[in-house]
Amino acid sequence: MEGSPGNILRLRRLGIDTHTENMIFVRADSQVCRSEGFTASTRVEVIFEARSIIATLVVISSDLLHDGEASLSDYGFESLLVQEGDLVTIEHLRPIRSFSHVRAKMFDRKFNERALQEIVSDIIKGFYSHIEIAAFVTACSGDNLALDEVIYLTKAMIESGSRLSWHKPLIIDKHCIGGLPGNRTTPIVVPIIAAAGLTIPKTSSRAITSPAGTADVIETMTPVNLTLDEIQKVVQQEGGCMVWGGTVKLSPADDVIIYVEKALDVDSPGQMIASVLSKKAAAGSTHTIIDIPVGETAKVRTKEEAFLLEYYLRAVGLSIGMEVEVLITDGSQPVGRGIGPALEALDVLSVLRNEPDAPKDLKDRALKIAGLMLETASVAEKGKGYAQAQEILESGAALAKFYSICHAQGGFKEPVTAPLRHNIPAQANGFITKIDNRKLAKIAKLAGAPTSPGAGILFKAPIGTEVQQGQPLLTIYAETQGELTYALEYLNSVRDVIQIAPEV
Amino acid sequence: MEGSPGNILRLRRLGIDTHTENMIFVRADSQVCRSEGFTASTRVEVIFEARSIIATLVVISSDLLHDGEASLSDYGFESLLVQEGDLVTIEHLRPIRSFSHVRAKMFDRKFNERALQEIVSDIIKGFYSHIEIAAFVTACSGDNLALDEVIYLTKAMIESGSRLSWHKPLIIDKHCIGGLPGNRTTPIVVPIIAAAGLTIPKTSSRAITSPAGTADVIETMTPVNLTLDEIQKVVQQEGGCMVWGGTVKLSPADDVIIYVEKALDVDSPGQMIASVLSKKAAAGSTHTIIDIPVGETAKVRTKEEAFLLEYYLRAVGLSIGMEVEVLITDGSQPVGRGIGPALEALDVLSVLRNEPDAPKDLKDRALKIAGLMLETASVAEKGKGYAQAQEILESGAALAKFYSICHAQGGFKEPVTAPLRHNIPAQANGFITKIDNRKLAKIAKLAGAPTSPGAGILFKAPIGTEVQQGQPLLTIYAETQGELTYALEYLNSVRDVIQIAPEV
Repeated sequence: MEGSPGNILRLRRLGIDTHTENMIFVRADSQVCRSEGFTASTRVEVIFEARSIIATLVVISSDLLHDGEASLSDYGFESLLVQEGDLVTIEHLRPIRSFSHVRAKMFDRKFNERALQEIVSDIIKGFYSHIEIAAFVTACSGDNLALDEVIYLTKAMIESGSRLSWHKPLIIDKHCIGGLPGNRTTPIVVPIIAAAGLTIPKTSSRAITSPAGTADVIETMTPVNLTLDEIQKVVQQEGGCMVWGGTVKLSPADDVIIYVEKALDVDSPGQMIASVLSKKAAAGSTHTIIDIPVGETAKVRTKEEAFLLEYYLRAVGLSIGMEVEVLITDGSQPVGRGIGPALEALDVLSVLRNEPDAPKDLKDRALKIAGLMLETASVAEKGKGYAQAQEILESGAALAKFYSICHAQGGFKEPVTAPLRHNIPAQANGFITKIDNRKLAKIAKLAGAPTSPGAGILFKAPIGTEVQQGQPLLTIYAETQGELTYALEYLNSVRDVIQIAPEV
Repeated sequence: MEGSPGNILRLRRLGIDTHTENMIFVRADSQVCRSEGFTASTRVEVIFEARSIIATLVVISSDLLHDGEASLSDYGFESLLVQEGDLVTIEHLRPIRSFSHVRAKMFDRKFNERALQEIVSDIIKGFYSHIEIAAFVTACSGDNLALDEVIYLTKAMIESGSRLSWHKPLIIDKHCIGGLPGNRTTPIVVPIIAAAGLTIPKTSSRAITSPAGTADVIETMTPVNLTLDEIQKVVQQEGGCMVWGGTVKLSPADDVIIYVEKALDVDSPGQMIASVLSKKAAAGSTHTIIDIPVGETAKVRTKEEAFLLEYYLRAVGLSIGMEVEVLITDGSQPVGRGIGPALEALDVLSVLRNEPDAPKDLKDRALKIAGLMLETASVAEKGKGYAQAQEILESGAALAKFYSICHAQGGFKEPVTAPLRHNIPAQANGFITKIDNRKLAKIAKLAGAPTSPGAGILFKAPIGTEVQQGQPLLTIYAETQGELTYALEYLNSVRDVIQIAPEV
């Protein structure tokens, strides 16, 4: 069929943005639909020169297009690298052989190494629709992946992307298993570790299901979308960086999978471990510290779950030649005061600047992680890492290094919060006894975080605080009245976001 | 936010067909996007008067629309019952609470009765995106559903749709668990049973993953898209009908789920049982015969699997007050000669017309099923059902009843096969020893079945046949050269579709 003229269409740009789902628009009565039996929702291959993408066919039943013309969604123009007027060929999609492995998994068979390589490779090529990725994510959810399958998935993800190499014997990195609003230790830890003379090429993710990812927070202070070359320059110069991992394609399959996980609001343990460790390995790390906050409303709810994760993380690390150390921390309440990119960035800056009212919990957590890293890298003796990290922070060396890294990444700016604000007062006198992190996170998201970087929550009452009726427990920040109203509607529809009892 | 003017948009019809996925198109710089923080791929609620639908937002970055205007996909105009010029309101989608049950299932918790009621109800309301339905389907796949969960799902599906009532003590029905190309007994069994004086309101489905569903086959001879009223008239007059189940909304959730199952090419046991029995119950059946063909390349591969399905079918039947009888049959090769709607219809007609070369296997299967039905309904004594069914068929009474039912449904026409034909010859002398049903089905689908009703395969060599090199084993029928080429490309790329050995 290749080259048959009915399959060749001239591109016109209709200007239709369907996010990362590629679509191709063709007339209902066009020759290509009639001769090939294409109908709406058919998945097709769109070919231009030696490149191709997979797209979902959308049928135009009006005069938006003429026969012989086609349009792509905006992302399709980008991913196929085409322009208006280019001639593309549309072909039937070859059956995706690797999806048979997913189907077998749905019927409880195990993935082998090759199956996961093929799946990851086909996902990167864009062969999987969102429906198919949703099935893959679900088939891998809960405890459906055994240790060997997580190892295969991790290796497949490492092999699928770029890999950084630093020509140094020791590269150290950290990661926090999310779920704890405001727990933004990275922009404090990176400058401490870099100031200690170690190499820490830190890449972070954007929010999956939370109101802010570390990359979202850092982006309110300095550019994070750096190319591979730019990252290498920053790290060579400063010993560390704080960038978004997405642009450098360290694990390209992961980005597509994360889009679907976000839509489903799930993040399964096997996928998560593969995602975290594959990115660390691709970034060249030899040593990685993982912070697991544990709490009733954190991502990891019990110590048992944390111990199991620790086992998996260490075992997968071993299989890919990486030393993994785990720090299990308190996850019962938000860290710092801000929830949302800019509000969390303000907390980070006040710790780095050694301001007297800087959040103590955030500072303490950052020093614990940095301390363990200094010990793991044998820069500090066992038991002396915390004090050494504290010295670097309080001397101002960490702040100086932070600014240097920001300048190397493209400049520093102060974070800007959103203009609309609404205080939520305490309903009674008493003591704060319990905080629902999940509901707080949802309120911050409804208020617009992380899409609006200045939106979110300023949280004013940690567990144990004595409060008076009418005293503000939190302030909601939003860019638009619609978002503010929506966050308030939700807050008023649920109970026990923050619990107050007459006595502690 | 309701009534805030920025949320109200005037509809313009762009003529964009996105199948059953609702989409709403809005300008990037429109007030609604700016004030509400909507971006591409946001899921929103679109409200008109007292009705609403859920749609995926598509952002228009060109002048296809003006500020203050929106367009819906063609299906959106239909499902919201709106026209150009109508004013619709767009609102943020409330979180879909029932999806938390799916998330819990992904982490291996069980569904309770209420959870499945809420999920099915939200699917019918259109609250689930295809991504979310894919996660639900996958979470229910394999043996992930226990017996009680299948019962809850079945009951939830029954309650979700219309229900037929016939004011008769005994309503009998049949169903075949697919996977066997050409096994089209329904249009033979229905007239036999109706001619015997019983009531058989048979609704059939269209193809999910096969080259033809029973409704697709019957549609090549008589209309199958009847309304509930029309069906009741046909059954009252004739004692039986042969219609598509989709139009009567007997199980509306099922139709959406099946769309996603088709995209994934899976059909999981729990979903399948709930789907089959809920439709039978909604159609008013008191007695149901299930035919399970077993074979290496059939849907059910082993007798053990069939026994387990039988246990589930009977147990779920019991819980909803239905007597279920199971017939386990040979599924080692296609039944009849045709694969594809019109080609299978020709086999059916030759059996009903008692033509001397009518396919014996199809006739024998239909008589076995009809015989068991006559016995189950106590119309025939145990062991005498087959002979009684044979008498009704061979006397011409079944054919007369078939024509009557067709006329009651809107008229009879002879099926028409596709114009392009291509013979596949035997590569050697010998005997046919093995047939791969799945590969045959795939070839028929690539040739255009069931979208092109005349396309498919005419199969000429059952197991045990002696063939000479060059003798045609099958003929591929297609409407277009592209589809024919595509089927042939696949045929040439795989092995062992039909195996020939020098001796049997």
